[in-house]
Amino acid sequence: MLLAMRRRRIKVFVETGLENIRYLTGFTGSSAFLIMSEKKSTLLTDSRYTSQAREEVKKHGFTVKIYKKEVFSAIATEIKKLSFTGSVGVDGSAMSYVAFGKLKAALKPIRLRALPNITGPLRMVKEGAELELIKKAASILEGGFRRARRFLRPGAVERVVARKVEDYFVSRGAEGVSFESIVASGHRGALPHGKASEKEIQRGELVVMDMGVSYKGYCSDGTRTFAVGKATALQKKIYRIVKEAQLSAIEKISDGVSASSVDSAARTHIRKAGYGKYFGHGTGHGIGLAVHEGPGLGPKSTDVLTEGMVVTVEPGIYLPDWGGVRIEDMVLVKKEGCELITNSPEKLLCI
Amino acid sequence: MLLAMRRRRIKVFVETGLENIRYLTGFTGSSAFLIMSEKKSTLLTDSRYTSQAREEVKKHGFTVKIYKKEVFSAIATEIKKLSFTGSVGVDGSAMSYVAFGKLKAALKPIRLRALPNITGPLRMVKEGAELELIKKAASILEGGFRRARRFLRPGAVERVVARKVEDYFVSRGAEGVSFESIVASGHRGALPHGKASEKEIQRGELVVMDMGVSYKGYCSDGTRTFAVGKATALQKKIYRIVKEAQLSAIEKISDGVSASSVDSAARTHIRKAGYGKYFGHGTGHGIGLAVHEGPGLGPKSTDVLTEGMVVTVEPGIYLPDWGGVRIEDMVLVKKEGCELITNSPEKLLCI
Repeated sequence: MLLAMRRRRIKVFVETGLENIRYLTGFTGSSAFLIMSEKKSTLLTDSRYTSQAREEVKKHGFTVKIYKKEVFSAIATEIKKLSFTGSVGVDGSAMSYVAFGKLKAALKPIRLRALPNITGPLRMVKEGAELELIKKAASILEGGFRRARRFLRPGAVERVVARKVEDYFVSRGAEGVSFESIVASGHRGALPHGKASEKEIQRGELVVMDMGVSYKGYCSDGTRTFAVGKATALQKKIYRIVKEAQLSAIEKISDGVSASSVDSAARTHIRKAGYGKYFGHGTGHGIGLAVHEGPGLGPKSTDVLTEGMVVTVEPGIYLPDWGGVRIEDMVLVKKEGCELITNSPEKLLCI
Repeated sequence: MLLAMRRRRIKVFVETGLENIRYLTGFTGSSAFLIMSEKKSTLLTDSRYTSQAREEVKKHGFTVKIYKKEVFSAIATEIKKLSFTGSVGVDGSAMSYVAFGKLKAALKPIRLRALPNITGPLRMVKEGAELELIKKAASILEGGFRRARRFLRPGAVERVVARKVEDYFVSRGAEGVSFESIVASGHRGALPHGKASEKEIQRGELVVMDMGVSYKGYCSDGTRTFAVGKATALQKKIYRIVKEAQLSAIEKISDGVSASSVDSAARTHIRKAGYGKYFGHGTGHGIGLAVHEGPGLGPKSTDVLTEGMVVTVEPGIYLPDWGGVRIEDMVLVKKEGCELITNSPEKLLCI
């Protein structure tokens, strides 16, 4: 972190993103500011978190300070104590326009500079302990998908199916879900973000289940598409195209490869199969403390994959009124190639 | 909304807050921008939400537009189609510093102005249909607290208790919780935000349960403090002081009363009882589509209570190492006085 600051010629950086703060300090509360400098780094939070902050942060070598009054003047006071020359940086995309203006005013005559998220890129490559937590979150998720097969019956309500799988997650030690569960059956499968609803699942429908688990702060994210009853030829065909697209993308993944070329592998396959206009979203994203983080696997991504990154690969085809298929696995980027953290079935599973 | 825009001499306002967008249009997706003007109002979202946006928004008279490329230039394109003279407003606290800069650049030569959250104040006073949903969310929550008494036994794990109560919420039709459940027993009760942990509840401890339910988008929020086993004299005394403080605050509530005076009523009572420094947070907050929204019931609030607002009243006393007591109810502001939406027990309940 100090290295990233030195590169940008910043003496002091104020981190405002809660996941970044958790990554850097271990603090899990819902409100804090982290002031980092070569001399001293201080976590500023409010009195609700006095005990918790001291407990969580001490092992990382940060000082905890509780602010009582106005937070921007409290930040400025701490920064002015550091007596340095130079400017202060913040992540300009994690701070509102109004908050930026207030901090800028409080800091005067010290200059405030808007920088990109400099902690985010540090988070992309996972360390051993992080990988273990991600793999644990992924294994609980896969257990949930196996369990889901029991609940996917004609007449079952999407929301009830979701809830039963979520109960399983929690029974296996997850804190909870990493995002609102998607269970989208039949025509609802054409909504890529079809949250589990009151709809009853019907025989003959495809069901897209996109779920994730949070385990000690780390996330998993995966999608399975099942057929309830016998699958039609078209259902099988769409599944096959999406699976092939996913495999083409996964084959591309390796240290040094551009993220956009991975997206392109999946996208080209789907386009060549004649369904290009029915795949509207990116092919995947990084995952860790946040369910969506860098790198992005989309056509416009400028990220380059690096050993130790964990990404999702999740192409899909969505046909309005008919339904959809999405298949999503988590993948660890290796020096040569990659390792599948989750494994979706090769063929459309009929239940 | 158009009235609020006219007051601020704004011809076009771009709403970026998702809860505000849901309030104004009915759209429940996770990504959208709403361009409002006297001529035409357009919801801009991405292709994941094509069907959903058209379904949800049509009854409110908004046009849906799906953007494909860069969102800020898409917003600018829509705005320029409106051919008007004057400036465009956005909520400067809901948009990041960087996003504001990008929209500003895309809009040139039209001027972009940072305004306060002008939709937020509209949301504070609830309409009949909203009140019904809030009351339903509150009644599910109260059922959960009654149910919780069964689970609060010596040896029960906080997280398991939380999960069982949450299961009850869902079985009664809630979408889920409106925030991460707090179950803080014994010394953990001194953490005002002690999320349910792996700690086992012991006989003789107080347990602070702060939970909430989301029902068709609308939230409830309440806190109960229970004693497991026989309560000590100090436990009963602290409960009594907090309850009296809460009642003093509730007595104050009426149309036209300043929110800070409601806070002051609770705070003064706790201070006079000698526990002033152990009550560090505000006395309450508005609740609706968001679990925390205006008005704020704190010492520095400038809000004035108005008939139809729904607020929480939740004083607490937190003694480090010993534990804590918080009591929270939801209250509807009336022309004269107020109506309790939830009812916490008068005396410390020993289970």
